[in-house]
Amino acid sequence: MKLLRYGPKGQEKPGLLDQNGKIRDLSKVVDDIAGEALSDATLAKLRALDPVSLPEVPGEPRIGPCVGSVGKFVCIGLNYADHAAESNLPVPTEPVLFGKWTSAICGPNDDVEIPRNSKKTDWEVELGVVIGKEAKYVSEADALDYVAGYCVINDVSEREWQLEHGTQWDKGKGFDTFGPIGPWLVTKDEIADPQQLSMWLEVDGHRYQNGSTKTMVFGVAELVSYLSKVMSLQPGDVISTGTPPGVGMGVKPAPVYLKVGQTMRLGIQGLGEQQQRTVDAK
Amino acid sequence: MKLLRYGPKGQEKPGLLDQNGKIRDLSKVVDDIAGEALSDATLAKLRALDPVSLPEVPGEPRIGPCVGSVGKFVCIGLNYADHAAESNLPVPTEPVLFGKWTSAICGPNDDVEIPRNSKKTDWEVELGVVIGKEAKYVSEADALDYVAGYCVINDVSEREWQLEHGTQWDKGKGFDTFGPIGPWLVTKDEIADPQQLSMWLEVDGHRYQNGSTKTMVFGVAELVSYLSKVMSLQPGDVISTGTPPGVGMGVKPAPVYLKVGQTMRLGIQGLGEQQQRTVDAK
Repeated sequence: MKLLRYGPKGQEKPGLLDQNGKIRDLSKVVDDIAGEALSDATLAKLRALDPVSLPEVPGEPRIGPCVGSVGKFVCIGLNYADHAAESNLPVPTEPVLFGKWTSAICGPNDDVEIPRNSKKTDWEVELGVVIGKEAKYVSEADALDYVAGYCVINDVSEREWQLEHGTQWDKGKGFDTFGPIGPWLVTKDEIADPQQLSMWLEVDGHRYQNGSTKTMVFGVAELVSYLSKVMSLQPGDVISTGTPPGVGMGVKPAPVYLKVGQTMRLGIQGLGEQQQRTVDAK
Repeated sequence: MKLLRYGPKGQEKPGLLDQNGKIRDLSKVVDDIAGEALSDATLAKLRALDPVSLPEVPGEPRIGPCVGSVGKFVCIGLNYADHAAESNLPVPTEPVLFGKWTSAICGPNDDVEIPRNSKKTDWEVELGVVIGKEAKYVSEADALDYVAGYCVINDVSEREWQLEHGTQWDKGKGFDTFGPIGPWLVTKDEIADPQQLSMWLEVDGHRYQNGSTKTMVFGVAELVSYLSKVMSLQPGDVISTGTPPGVGMGVKPAPVYLKVGQTMRLGIQGLGEQQQRTVDAK
């Protein structure tokens, strides 16, 4: 099942993508794709609906972030061995954790703002994991029971603020629009193995990232279990699980960063595609 | 004006402390002490009320976190020169920024959980700044216009997870109950100078922290302006501005950490007091 949110920013309605790629309106069934609507019980209820019985949404509305009211936007760093190498950093022996501010979240095709005076804004295609029920001290064996589904995330990053203004990365990760999420929350029943998904990212048609979740250092189940030992995870929390090689910072012989007026396109197998234009920060 | 939230966890109602220290029910006036209720206009409306006209809340209800629906819980590290020294770290040349997960937020007198197997859970009394209106790229001169008020925060920290599991501090800062906030949101009109507030913290009656916001490296206005350049701040966001000397990690000749069954008491001049008991993590 592919769930989504459509409509103007801040006024998104819940929707479902039918087999013909049409959006069906879910707003008579759930208030939002958020919180308790991500429970097994509610997802089962949605799955039992006949999409044809739901109103078809006319036109091509804006697609919002695929989860609403995200409480935590938890990111994992250096979670692909090859990406750690291109960053000149050792492969971690346990997950590296940092945060993106939830105010950074935007729709999958919204404009991405280049912060004022930024010279090092970079891209990162990542597998997003959406939590479906509260998880605290859960085992790796049980961890996927707490996952509602998956989505595409662009973990947009300003490298100067991330790495050259102190030791803590959060500073370069949470600018407005640095967290496009979606287009869809794909429920986990549609993803046979989250560790076998190809992923890619292009800037102005040039392919920079080409990878697969199979080269993750710590897989989804291990991450959910690990995180649940240092926080409680709630329905609607989103985990961004790290990026494969090919970020701008790692380009040889010299890094390549985003400029205003460029277009990023990125996607993950089975989870859809995003496309963002870069603009000056408001 | 001292605003607060009272009642069981997750069901808090908005209230106001009257001149006799009694809680008055605001739930007929605002839905919550959160978001748009923190705007200048709504605060002016609340200030115009005669507290005696509001229902007095009977008994001694639990006090919840003084702000609801916190979107971001932004923390500043090493923001007192003496605390940086006791941590064996240099005084920063620009603000050090990290995050606490919003799921760590709890009431000022709620139990604080010692994480499983933790040997290094520590305390930090801090001045909290509550944002009243959206701030993005604001100057230091204008920054206090975006502040609704102030509160006491205990930035509870697990030092092993903060410092010995990689370079990023977030891991040790966001355990459940690691963010007691309150008892009151004291509106800024009651605080003549946020850089002249004495603050203290005791564990089982022993005073460990004794400081004043006058020794902050970066003051409140500078912090709000700085943060507004790397994120947009929204109404209800909370900034914890760093701690003065006297944390457990800095005790000589050997660090002192919290054990289950202890009691922390802490306060800031004009902002009230908190008291937490330490318990095993659930």
